[in-house]
Amino acid sequence: MKRITPVLALTLVALPLCAAAAPQSPAKVRPPAQIIAEAPATDWRRADPDNTLYIDTPRGRVIVELAAAFAPKHVANIKALAREHFYDGLSFYRVVDGFVAQGGDESGEKPIEHGARALPAEFTHKQLFDGTFTPLPDRDGYAPQTGFVHGFPAARDPNAGISWLTHCPAAFAMARELDVDSGGTEFYIVIGNAQRYLDRNTTVFGRVLDGMAALQKLQRGNEAMGMLKHPEENQITRIQVAGDLPAEERTPLEVLKTDSDSFKELIAARRHRPESWFVARPDYIDVCSVGVPTRQIPTE
Amino acid sequence: MKRITPVLALTLVALPLCAAAAPQSPAKVRPPAQIIAEAPATDWRRADPDNTLYIDTPRGRVIVELAAAFAPKHVANIKALAREHFYDGLSFYRVVDGFVAQGGDESGEKPIEHGARALPAEFTHKQLFDGTFTPLPDRDGYAPQTGFVHGFPAARDPNAGISWLTHCPAAFAMARELDVDSGGTEFYIVIGNAQRYLDRNTTVFGRVLDGMAALQKLQRGNEAMGMLKHPEENQITRIQVAGDLPAEERTPLEVLKTDSDSFKELIAARRHRPESWFVARPDYIDVCSVGVPTRQIPTE
Repeated sequence: MKRITPVLALTLVALPLCAAAAPQSPAKVRPPAQIIAEAPATDWRRADPDNTLYIDTPRGRVIVELAAAFAPKHVANIKALAREHFYDGLSFYRVVDGFVAQGGDESGEKPIEHGARALPAEFTHKQLFDGTFTPLPDRDGYAPQTGFVHGFPAARDPNAGISWLTHCPAAFAMARELDVDSGGTEFYIVIGNAQRYLDRNTTVFGRVLDGMAALQKLQRGNEAMGMLKHPEENQITRIQVAGDLPAEERTPLEVLKTDSDSFKELIAARRHRPESWFVARPDYIDVCSVGVPTRQIPTE
Repeated sequence: MKRITPVLALTLVALPLCAAAAPQSPAKVRPPAQIIAEAPATDWRRADPDNTLYIDTPRGRVIVELAAAFAPKHVANIKALAREHFYDGLSFYRVVDGFVAQGGDESGEKPIEHGARALPAEFTHKQLFDGTFTPLPDRDGYAPQTGFVHGFPAARDPNAGISWLTHCPAAFAMARELDVDSGGTEFYIVIGNAQRYLDRNTTVFGRVLDGMAALQKLQRGNEAMGMLKHPEENQITRIQVAGDLPAEERTPLEVLKTDSDSFKELIAARRHRPESWFVARPDYIDVCSVGVPTRQIPTE
C-alpha cells in the first residue's frame, strides 16, 4: 500500500529549521489528524436540527446545514417549502460533472402554498462577524479577506462592512435567472472544484455536511446547459427539516467550531503540512482547502 | 428553468464602464462559449494516441493524456506497465470523496516484467517552456507563476528555472511512500477540489481528458485512509495505450491548444465573466478554474 498523503498519520515529526514563519508558529503545529482526534468536546457543536435539511434520494441522504445568519429569508423559505412537501418527487434535473447539481421544479409551475417562488437576493450580509470570524492569514484573489464563520467558508470586505459565503465544494446556493431577485426554489450544490467566481452572484445559504458521494452518483445531463433528458433518473424522494423528525430518526452530526482553538490550529496545519511525508511545504492556504471537520455522534 | 450561469449563452453584452483593466481588455472579450464555438480549426490539436491511456472500468472509460515533456520516465513506465497488462484486473482500492481515486496493485507484489516498480521522482522539470507557456496574469498563492503548457495547468519558478504540473481536478499523478523515489505503479486522480498543496510533492504526469463522471461513481473507501474493504468493487478492467489500438477503436479527442489566441481569450473571459448574468465580476482567475476545452471529433 502506498500513501499519497499522510492525512491520518499521527506521528509528530521534527520540522526543518528553514520552515517559513507562519502566523501560528509551524513548529508548534500538530498534524491535522491529531488536532481533530484530540479536539476537546467543547470545541465541537451539534448541527442545529432546525437549520438542517435532509435531502433524500435513491442514492443516499444528503445533509445540508443552513446558514440562517447569512441568508435568513432563503433559509426560512426553503424550510417552508420542505414542510409543504414542495420538493418531494422532484429531481436534480441539471447535473454538470465537476460543477453543480441543481434540483427543484424544472417546470417552474408546481403550485406553492406557503413558500415564495422568488426572494430578494441575499448575496452579501451587512455584518463583519467580528469575534466569530476566523480569518485566514493569506491573500485571496477573489476577496479582500477570507475565513470561516459559524462553520462556513466565507469572505468579507472590511471597508464595505459586508460578508458572504464562498463557493467551495459542497456549497448550497440558490439558482437564479438574469434578475438577481428571481431565485427562490431551485437550489444547486457545488459538486466539483471551487467556483469562487460565482461568489456574490448568487445567494449561498448552506453547506453539505454529509452525503456528497450520493450527489456524485447522479446521472450527468447531456442536453444543453447540462440538463437531463430524463430528470426522473435523479429523483429527490423528499426534503425534510431534521428538527421535524423525532430525535431517534435524525442523523446526529457534530461540527468542529470554526472559532475554536482546535480549528485555528487546523488552519495552521493545513497551511504548513507538518507531516514528514511533505518535501515541499506550501505555507499557504486558500479558503476552500480547509475542510470543516464533521463527525457522526453515537445515538444515545 | 433557472440558470445558475450562462455558460452556454452566446449573447455579447455591453460591459460596465467601471470594469477593472485586465491584461486582455475585457471590453473585447467574448463569452467563453462563443470563444470555444468559434475557435478556428488550427487552434485545436488531436490528443496524441501514443501518449493517451484508456482506463476501462465497468462504470465507463477514463481517458488520460500523458505529459511526456514533464515526466518522461513516468510516462514511459506506465505505458510499459499497460503494455504488459499489469493493471488489468486490478482496482481503485483507495477512493476518498472530494480528494482522490487511487488505483493499481494494493499488494505491491504483483510481478512486473518490463516496467519498474519505483522511479526517480519527477516533481519538477528543469525548463521554463518559454514560448509555449501561457501565463495567467494573477498572483497565485502556491507558486510564483501559474499558467498552461501543452494543454496542462502548470506552474513555474522563473528564478529557479523549473516548471511543474499543478494538482487541479483531473490531475493524474503517482502515489509514493515517504521516500520521494518510491512511486512507480500506484497512480491517483484528483476527483475533488484542487489539491494544490500536493504540488511538487508527487509527480503529476497527466490529466483526465474524459470520463471523470465514471470515477465519481466509484465506491468510496470506509477503512482508514479511505481504503476499500472490497476493492474488487472498483475494478480496473484494463489499461491500454490508445495508439496500440486500431484507429477505428480509438476515441478521437481534440484539445484546444493552450498557447492559441482562442485559449488566451478564454482565460480573459473566465477572468472577467462578460456574460450579462454576472453582477459581481471577479476579474481574477486561478489556474484550476480555467478548464482546457476538449471535444470528441467525429470518426471518419
